[in-house]
Amino acid sequence: MTGTLAAIGAGLAVIGVGLGIGRIGGSAMDAMARQPEASGKIQTAMIIAAALIEGAGLFGIVVGLLGL
Amino acid sequence: MTGTLAAIGAGLAVIGVGLGIGRIGGSAMDAMARQPEASGKIQTAMIIAAALIEGAGLFGIVVGLLGL
Amino acid sequence: MTGTLAAIGAGLAVIGVGLGIGRIGGSAMDAMARQPEASGKIQTAMIIAAALIEGAGLFGIVVGLLGL
Amino acid sequence: MTGTLAAIGAGLAVIGVGLGIGRIGGSAMDAMARQPEASGKIQTAMIIAAALIEGAGLFGIVVGLLGL
Amino acid sequence: MTGTLAAIGAGLAVIGVGLGIGRIGGSAMDAMARQPEASGKIQTAMIIAAALIEGAGLFGIVVGLLGL
Amino acid sequence: MTGTLAAIGAGLAVIGVGLGIGRIGGSAMDAMARQPEASGKIQTAMIIAAALIEGAGLFGIVVGLLGL
Amino acid sequence: MTGTLAAIGAGLAVIGVGLGIGRIGGSAMDAMARQPEASGKIQTAMIIAAALIEGAGLFGIVVGLLGL
Amino acid sequence: MTGTLAAIGAGLAVIGVGLGIGRIGGSAMDAMARQPEASGKIQTAMIIAAALIEGAGLFGIVVGLLGL
Amino acid sequence: MTGTLAAIGAGLAVIGVGLGIGRIGGSAMDAMARQPEASGKIQTAMIIAAALIEGAGLFGIVVGLLGL
Amino acid sequence: MTGTLAAIGAGLAVIGVGLGIGRIGGSAMDAMARQPEASGKIQTAMIIAAALIEGAGLFGIVVGLLGL
Amino acid sequence: MTGTLAAIGAGLAVIGVGLGIGRIGGSAMDAMARQPEASGKIQTAMIIAAALIEGAGLFGIVVGLLGL
Amino acid sequence: MTGTLAAIGAGLAVIGVGLGIGRIGGSAMDAMARQPEASGKIQTAMIIAAALIEGAGLFGIVVGLLGL
Amino acid sequence: MTGTLAAIGAGLAVIGVGLGIGRIGGSAMDAMARQPEASGKIQTAMIIAAALIEGAGLFGIVVGLLGL
Amino acid sequence: MTGTLAAIGAGLAVIGVGLGIGRIGGSAMDAMARQPEASGKIQTAMIIAAALIEGAGLFGIVVGLLGL
Repeated sequence: MTGTLAAIGAGLAVIGVGLGIGRIGGSAMDAMARQPEASGKIQTAMIIAAALIEGAGLFGIVVGLLGL
Repeated sequence: MTGTLAAIGAGLAVIGVGLGIGRIGGSAMDAMARQPEASGKIQTAMIIAAALIEGAGLFGIVVGLLGL
Repeated sequence: MTGTLAAIGAGLAVIGVGLGIGRIGGSAMDAMARQPEASGKIQTAMIIAAALIEGAGLFGIVVGLLGL
Repeated sequence: MTGTLAAIGAGLAVIGVGLGIGRIGGSAMDAMARQPEASGKIQTAMIIAAALIEGAGLFGIVVGLLGL
Repeated sequence: MTGTLAAIGAGLAVIGVGLGIGRIGGSAMDAMARQPEASGKIQTAMIIAAALIEGAGLFGIVVGLLGL
Repeated sequence: MTGTLAAIGAGLAVIGVGLGIGRIGGSAMDAMARQPEASGKIQTAMIIAAALIEGAGLFGIVVGLLGL
Repeated sequence: MTGTLAAIGAGLAVIGVGLGIGRIGGSAMDAMARQPEASGKIQTAMIIAAALIEGAGLFGIVVGLLGL
Repeated sequence: MTGTLAAIGAGLAVIGVGLGIGRIGGSAMDAMARQPEASGKIQTAMIIAAALIEGAGLFGIVVGLLGL
Repeated sequence: MTGTLAAIGAGLAVIGVGLGIGRIGGSAMDAMARQPEASGKIQTAMIIAAALIEGAGLFGIVVGLLGL
Repeated sequence: MTGTLAAIGAGLAVIGVGLGIGRIGGSAMDAMARQPEASGKIQTAMIIAAALIEGAGLFGIVVGLLGL
Repeated sequence: MTGTLAAIGAGLAVIGVGLGIGRIGGSAMDAMARQPEASGKIQTAMIIAAALIEGAGLFGIVVGLLGL
Repeated sequence: MTGTLAAIGAGLAVIGVGLGIGRIGGSAMDAMARQPEASGKIQTAMIIAAALIEGAGLFGIVVGLLGL
Repeated sequence: MTGTLAAIGAGLAVIGVGLGIGRIGGSAMDAMARQPEASGKIQTAMIIAAALIEGAGLFGIVVGLLGL
Repeated sequence: MTGTLAAIGAGLAVIGVGLGIGRIGGSAMDAMARQPEASGKIQTAMIIAAALIEGAGLFGIVVGLLGL
């Protein structure tokens, strides 16, 4: 069990990424359907917010990788 | 128990992918039904958001694979 | 307990697949009932999104199989 | 405890199958009640989506069986 | 504790069956109340979807039985 | 602790039965209140769906009993 | 700890009974308030559904009692 | 730890009782407010349903008491 | 750890009491606000239902006390 | 670890108190806003219901204190 | 690990306080926005209900402190 | 592991603070948007309720700090 | 395992911060969309409420850091 | 297992970041769709709130990294 617990940490990080980007992306889909003409602005904001989560998420997965 | 805990990490990563892409995809279905003429733009945004989760998810599963 | 924890990882991966495709499929059913004439486009998008989850899910189950 | 943890993995896989097909099937029932004349198309899509989950689910249960 | 953990796996499988068929059956009740004249078609689809879950569920319970 | 973990499996099976039949029965009550004249057909479908869960549930409890 | 884990199984079985009958009973209350003249038929169906859960539940508690 | 785990089982049984009777009672309150003239019939049905849960619950708590 | 696990059982029993009476009481508040002239009848029913939970709850806490 | 598990029981009891009184109090706030002229009667009923939970909760915390 | 488990009990007690006062306070905010002229009466009731939770919560945290 | 479990208690206390103040603050935002002219009174009540949670929360974190 | 459990406490603290500020921030977004002219006042209140959580959260993370 | 538990703490921190920024971002998408002309102000507030969570989150992940 030398380090494999770290893989669980990586898995939890992916859950966090999925919950976060999933929520943002899902709301972006709804927003585009309601205001198709604003879809460019919405997509930009979606990618900004998703990038913040992605950054923390990849950092967390790398911690899991270092822990192996 | 030499490394098999890592498979749990991989399983958790799949849960994250499922939660995330499931939410995005489900909202995309709803959006297409509400605005069928915007379905091209919605599908593009869906794949962008899904790719961000898929990337983190596969990274997490690979950490699980390395931990075996 | 040599490796059987990996089967739990496989089980968790199936939960992820079920949550994800279940959500996408359920929304696709609703969408088809609301816009029957767009059901071809919706089914295509459903299969794209489901394939992304299925791919990650099978990868996760295979990690569980390798961990046995 | 030689392998019986694998049965828990099989149980978790059934939960995934139940959550997924349950959601798809439940939405299909609602969709049929709202659009009875589209019930053939809905049933086809329901079986496609359910088959994707069933496949991953049976794979996961077999991993549990191999782990015994 | 030689094998009794497998009974927990069987119990989890029953939870999966209950969640799945419960959701399908509950939606079928609602659908029948909304469209009583389509109740034959709805009952057929309900049994198809329930059978897919029942199959995976019984498989999972049998894995639990073998693990005793 | 020779076998008493199996009783937990039986308890989990009862949870599954309760969740499933509870949902079906609850929806059947609602359906009967909305369409009192269709209550015969609804009660029949309720018992069919409940029997599928009851069957899997009793099987799961018996596995728990064998595991004692 | 010779058998006292079985009491946890009995407790879980009571949770299942509570979730199930609670849901059925709660919906029956709502249904009676909406259709007071159908309350006889609703009460009959409520007792049938509750009996199915009560049966499985008592079986599960008895398994817990035998496991002591 | 000779038997004190049984007290946890008793506690879980109380959670089941609380969830079940709480749901029934809460719905009965709502029903009485909507149909004050049917409150006698609703109170009778509430006590029947609550008695079924109370019975299973006390049985479960007694199992916990015997396990001490 | 001679018996202190029993205190956890008592704590779980309090959670059950809180969930149950909380739900009943909360619905009673709503009901009184909707039908202020029926508040006497609602308060009576509230106390009957709460007493059933309180009884089981105190029994469960006493089991926890005996287990110390 | 001589008795400190009992503090967890006390903490769980506080969660029960918080869930219960929180729900009752929250509904009482809503009720007062909807029927300001009935706020005296609502506050009385709120304190009766809260006292029932507070009593069980303090009993549970005292069990935790005795278990130290 | 001599007593530090008690800090977890204190943490759980804070969760109970947060859930309870959070719910009461949140509903009080909504109530004040709906009936600004009744905000004095609402604030009084809010503080009464919050005090009941705060009392039990501080008692629970003190048990955690004594357990250190 | 001499005392580091106490840090988990501190983490749980922060969850309690987050749940509680998050709920109060979120409702206060909604209330201000609905009644902008009452925002002074709402902010005062928000800070009173938040202070009650903050107090208990910091007490809980300090218990975690003492437990190190 | 000398102190690394403290990192879990820090992680839990971040969950608390995320739940709390996420809820406040999300409601603030909704409020700004409903009352764009009150966005200054809303942003001020948002930062006050967020600061209370941030303070407790950083305190909790520091406890986790000291526990390493 | 020298330090790899810390990776779980990092994973939990990512879940917190995902929950928080996901909620804020999702609400921001909805807000932009409802008030496209206020999207600049909304995006500014979104980034302020997200930065507060990101800060605490990265701090938590770094604690996880130091704990390896």
